[in-house]
Amino acid sequence: MNIKPLGDRVVIKMIEVEEKTKSGIVLPSSAKEEPQMAEVVAIGPDIENDEKKSKQVKLGDKVIFSKYSGTEVKLDKEEYTIVKLNDILAVIE
Amino acid sequence: MNIKPLGDRVVIKMIEVEEKTKSGIVLPSSAKEEPQMAEVVAIGPDIENDEKKSKQVKLGDKVIFSKYSGTEVKLDKEEYTIVKLNDILAVIE
Amino acid sequence: MNIKPLGDRVVIKMIEVEEKTKSGIVLPSSAKEEPQMAEVVAIGPDIENDEKKSKQVKLGDKVIFSKYSGTEVKLDKEEYTIVKLNDILAVIE
Amino acid sequence: MNIKPLGDRVVIKMIEVEEKTKSGIVLPSSAKEEPQMAEVVAIGPDIENDEKKSKQVKLGDKVIFSKYSGTEVKLDKEEYTIVKLNDILAVIE
Amino acid sequence: MNIKPLGDRVVIKMIEVEEKTKSGIVLPSSAKEEPQMAEVVAIGPDIENDEKKSKQVKLGDKVIFSKYSGTEVKLDKEEYTIVKLNDILAVIE
Amino acid sequence: MNIKPLGDRVVIKMIEVEEKTKSGIVLPSSAKEEPQMAEVVAIGPDIENDEKKSKQVKLGDKVIFSKYSGTEVKLDKEEYTIVKLNDILAVIE
Amino acid sequence: MNIKPLGDRVVIKMIEVEEKTKSGIVLPSSAKEEPQMAEVVAIGPDIENDEKKSKQVKLGDKVIFSKYSGTEVKLDKEEYTIVKLNDILAVIE
Repeated sequence: MNIKPLGDRVVIKMIEVEEKTKSGIVLPSSAKEEPQMAEVVAIGPDIENDEKKSKQVKLGDKVIFSKYSGTEVKLDKEEYTIVKLNDILAVIE
Repeated sequence: MNIKPLGDRVVIKMIEVEEKTKSGIVLPSSAKEEPQMAEVVAIGPDIENDEKKSKQVKLGDKVIFSKYSGTEVKLDKEEYTIVKLNDILAVIE
Repeated sequence: MNIKPLGDRVVIKMIEVEEKTKSGIVLPSSAKEEPQMAEVVAIGPDIENDEKKSKQVKLGDKVIFSKYSGTEVKLDKEEYTIVKLNDILAVIE
Repeated sequence: MNIKPLGDRVVIKMIEVEEKTKSGIVLPSSAKEEPQMAEVVAIGPDIENDEKKSKQVKLGDKVIFSKYSGTEVKLDKEEYTIVKLNDILAVIE
Repeated sequence: MNIKPLGDRVVIKMIEVEEKTKSGIVLPSSAKEEPQMAEVVAIGPDIENDEKKSKQVKLGDKVIFSKYSGTEVKLDKEEYTIVKLNDILAVIE
Repeated sequence: MNIKPLGDRVVIKMIEVEEKTKSGIVLPSSAKEEPQMAEVVAIGPDIENDEKKSKQVKLGDKVIFSKYSGTEVKLDKEEYTIVKLNDILAVIE
Repeated sequence: MNIKPLGDRVVIKMIEVEEKTKSGIVLPSSAKEEPQMAEVVAIGPDIENDEKKSKQVKLGDKVIFSKYSGTEVKLDKEEYTIVKLNDILAVIE
């Protein structure tokens, strides 16, 4: 099963980051509030066909995106988020 | 009876997906919260007559659409949703 | 008495649809929540004089319109709704 | 005393319509909820000087206007409402 | 002390209108709710330098303005209101 | 320490105005509600480089600005407000 | 790890300012309400490639930014804020 975003949308997948609580317990990021880092897994045609926009994000990029933006979808037991390019704030290298 | 959407609207029909609850009971998707996958059953003239837009969605496509968008209508005991092209987030292949 | 909508407005009249409740009682649609199907009874000049818009709705068309849109008016004991062309979602044939 | 609306505004005056209640008592329209029919008593310069707009409403026209729009003013013990042309929905002939 | 409005703003001063209550007591308008008639006391440069706008309001004009619009200021114990030209609904002659 | 506003912003400083309460006590304006008069202490580049805008406000001008607009900042124990040119309503001479 | 803002965004880092409370205790700024001064640590491509915008903020500039704007992110145990250029109100020199 394959997901193709429309227009200037991007499909991203949250990155699980392990983190210790103050008491030393390791929590997977899904137990914390508002994880915001994600990996780009699909890019819409309006980005691919635009020279300036296509430079900004590439497949596999790690990105930070705007809180509360986007729509979450579940496909084949995987959770994805579909956001607009404009909701991606920065790329982490 | 036939439904013709106006402008850049699309008529879609929810896809029923069976899913097991944790206790093992099979629930049809209408008993769950916010099903979002649907099939395209009619396309408005402003999409059909636009080369770029008509590439994005075709009759029979399975699509994911924006939560809470669109208007639900009942025709001949069937439920449909009329959405704008812009409320369709992605096509599933 | 005659009603002439201004600009790109359309005057529509709700269509009464009989429908049985679960217990078998026939209810006229005025007793149900949010009937949305209507017939076009007058069309504004900005639609009539626009080739592209005038193709979309004609007098006598059965249309579905956006919930909560429009203004209801009573003339000669008849109830009408005045909506913008953009609030008409689809034509039923 | 004379009132001259600015821009594309129109001054209208509510029309009193007698109507019988179910028990047969005749009520002047001021005792009912939201009367919406009015007569045009003054037209702003941006309408008068625009060929297309000036065709739409004329002095003396009976019009239906958008609920809650406009500003009510009292002059020489008469109540008027000042609305934008766009808040006039239809003309009654 | 002199007040010069910026842009397309106008400085107006409420007009005190005497009015009798039902019991016959004369009340100055400051004791009533929402007086809306005022006199123009200063006009901004974007109105003065625009041929079409400068025709609409002149110093000394009595005007009706939009409820709740504008900002009240007190200068030398006098109360003024600064409004945009667009918030002036009509001129009274 | 020096503050340079960006774009079409202006830095202003509230003017302290002494005023007597009804009981005769003199209150500095900081103890009253919503003082609105201020002095211009810095002007952004988009105003300085625009012939029409630069005529409207100059360093040292006493201005009235829109209630609730702007952002207050504290620098070297002095309180300033940064507002957009459009939030300045009038100049007092 | 390196953060690259997209579009006309800027990455800033809050500046810790020591300040004494009334009782004489020194508080780091993180214990106070809404610190607003920050240092520019990264600049987006739409600013770098625009002659007029690139003059306004440079790496290392101390800036004041709009309250509540921006998105906070944590990278390598450092807290950053990503804001739009338009949310930067002034540069402090």
